[in-house]
Amino acid sequence: MSSLSKKVLEGDVRSASRLMRNIDDGAESATQDLRALFPKTGRAYIIGITGSPGAGKSTLTDRLIAAFRKQGKKVGVIAVDPTSPFTGGAILGDRIRMQDHATDPGVFIRSLATRGNLGGLSRATGDCIRVMDAMGQDVILVETVGVGQDEIDIAQMAHTTLVVTVPGMGDDIQAIKAGILEVADVFVVNKADLDGADRTVRELRMMLELRHAVKAPPMDHDAHHRMVRAKAEGRHEETAPAPQEWEPPILKVVAAKDQGVDALVKAVEDHQAFLDKTGQRKEKERARAAMQFVALLRERLLRSALERLERERGRLDEVAGRIADRQADPYALAEELASQLRE
Amino acid sequence: MSSLSKKVLEGDVRSASRLMRNIDDGAESATQDLRALFPKTGRAYIIGITGSPGAGKSTLTDRLIAAFRKQGKKVGVIAVDPTSPFTGGAILGDRIRMQDHATDPGVFIRSLATRGNLGGLSRATGDCIRVMDAMGQDVILVETVGVGQDEIDIAQMAHTTLVVTVPGMGDDIQAIKAGILEVADVFVVNKADLDGADRTVRELRMMLELRHAVKAPPMDHDAHHRMVRAKAEGRHEETAPAPQEWEPPILKVVAAKDQGVDALVKAVEDHQAFLDKTGQRKEKERARAAMQFVALLRERLLRSALERLERERGRLDEVAGRIADRQADPYALAEELASQLRE
Repeated sequence: MSSLSKKVLEGDVRSASRLMRNIDDGAESATQDLRALFPKTGRAYIIGITGSPGAGKSTLTDRLIAAFRKQGKKVGVIAVDPTSPFTGGAILGDRIRMQDHATDPGVFIRSLATRGNLGGLSRATGDCIRVMDAMGQDVILVETVGVGQDEIDIAQMAHTTLVVTVPGMGDDIQAIKAGILEVADVFVVNKADLDGADRTVRELRMMLELRHAVKAPPMDHDAHHRMVRAKAEGRHEETAPAPQEWEPPILKVVAAKDQGVDALVKAVEDHQAFLDKTGQRKEKERARAAMQFVALLRERLLRSALERLERERGRLDEVAGRIADRQADPYALAEELASQLRE
Repeated sequence: MSSLSKKVLEGDVRSASRLMRNIDDGAESATQDLRALFPKTGRAYIIGITGSPGAGKSTLTDRLIAAFRKQGKKVGVIAVDPTSPFTGGAILGDRIRMQDHATDPGVFIRSLATRGNLGGLSRATGDCIRVMDAMGQDVILVETVGVGQDEIDIAQMAHTTLVVTVPGMGDDIQAIKAGILEVADVFVVNKADLDGADRTVRELRMMLELRHAVKAPPMDHDAHHRMVRAKAEGRHEETAPAPQEWEPPILKVVAAKDQGVDALVKAVEDHQAFLDKTGQRKEKERARAAMQFVALLRERLLRSALERLERERGRLDEVAGRIADRQADPYALAEELASQLRE
């Protein structure tokens, strides 16, 4: 194990920062360090915070940091902003927040905005979660703008996913709420002192009930069948135990005034207890492992394939020029490269 | 060439629909058809429409369809909604719009919501663009929610990218505007009859000027150097020609009342003329070819790698279970698979 890895395990913030920088730069040593740290990970509790732009996620994250710090927990924060490399939006937000917690060694905040054509945002997030886990952060908050495909994937890397919304957003917002309905463990109606908060709560509740209505028939059908069979076989049987399903609570919060944050922390703890009790934490961790592995694999494969392409056919932009001129066939090229993996 | 491909080239809507379904299903024949059609593509003009949720993109798209139809152009529409597979949001929107244009054979609308762990949304969009291009649609509108990484990539697959915003969105929206600033060829302030429209226009203009201010110094420096050198060499030289840069116009539109749509169409045509005149259309097409090729390659590679993994190590969820238990090392596994491409 490198001395850098050792220092990360000791919780050294500067070493963790350096490793994350190495990860960003795609340094060969970073992979070695990640491999060395990997067996030491799996201890942290990961909370995803996602939602529409303007929902006040950053303020909420700040409040959660404070609440977990009060419990004596070390907190890591990964703020994912895929749009920022253009103008450094996340970096700015990062600095503002860094000031709030600059003097607190128990808080480690990192912004992620990696883009580029390798699309490594999910992979980078997964790697950063592991570094923070290895350095001993008890809770890791992963904050994303919850509208894109990658962002929803990233939200699903968490044990508990908070979906944050606010009263009175536009019409399209309905579609987005629907889209992230399935990944939400806890709904937060933030800025709940604004008009329409109760309406938003009602709408969310209706959507959850609608989902139940859609989901329910096959389950009832099964239970019914079991009962029918038990009866036919002359057995008495208790009604089949209801599948242990988590009911996402809907909480009103005013993060800016620190209202409702304690109840939110309580809801997260309840969900954690539920996952532990039902054994679903293992499922969540398996799903996260799959997500992170696919993100890692996708980027690694693409990088190797583009290196090979460059060696054999020229740089990507040259090849793209030939494709644009219809002199090269992208489907044949992709197939040729992928076939290496099939042998 | 298959009879399906031939029919697509003849503009047969049912055949194009079938091919797109085959693409979705990952049918082997679909790749053959795409290869056969590829040399016949490159004629359509592609317009990306992106922006925050609630900006009224669907209504705007409808108005643009009508405007281009009035010009006698065949119009294709690809509505990309990564969040919809959960509840069918896009499908609903699709149906509503289909009704508006159901009797018009010159309009072909397709919703895309493919997700899953292969992350094939960009690839699917690229393939659908090509099918619509091959079937003879003159204009293809690609509509995305412009917040995620994939969505910005998709927006960049266009010749002209419209960024749609509305007056008076929240604070975070600033970050998003900043994020998509670089991909915008035309800004649309929709719902411009609402309060604050002029303020939004002013803010956008300020951001564009800020961008100029940031970008300008190296150019001025160069021009200055050239002048200094020319002077030193005793030559008279005209001020260096300004690089031909497109100034994204900012247009006020009320799509719901069909106000400002003609001016928007004019702006798109101006941009098209600019691209043709400056030779930048070729650059755009090369960038698009690169983007589509990378999306295609990424998905193909991942599929082949996961097949190989399953053959040698077990199904993804089994492998993920071992990773979650720290019995398998994801970094070593990814490296092992990627190394096949390096030989």
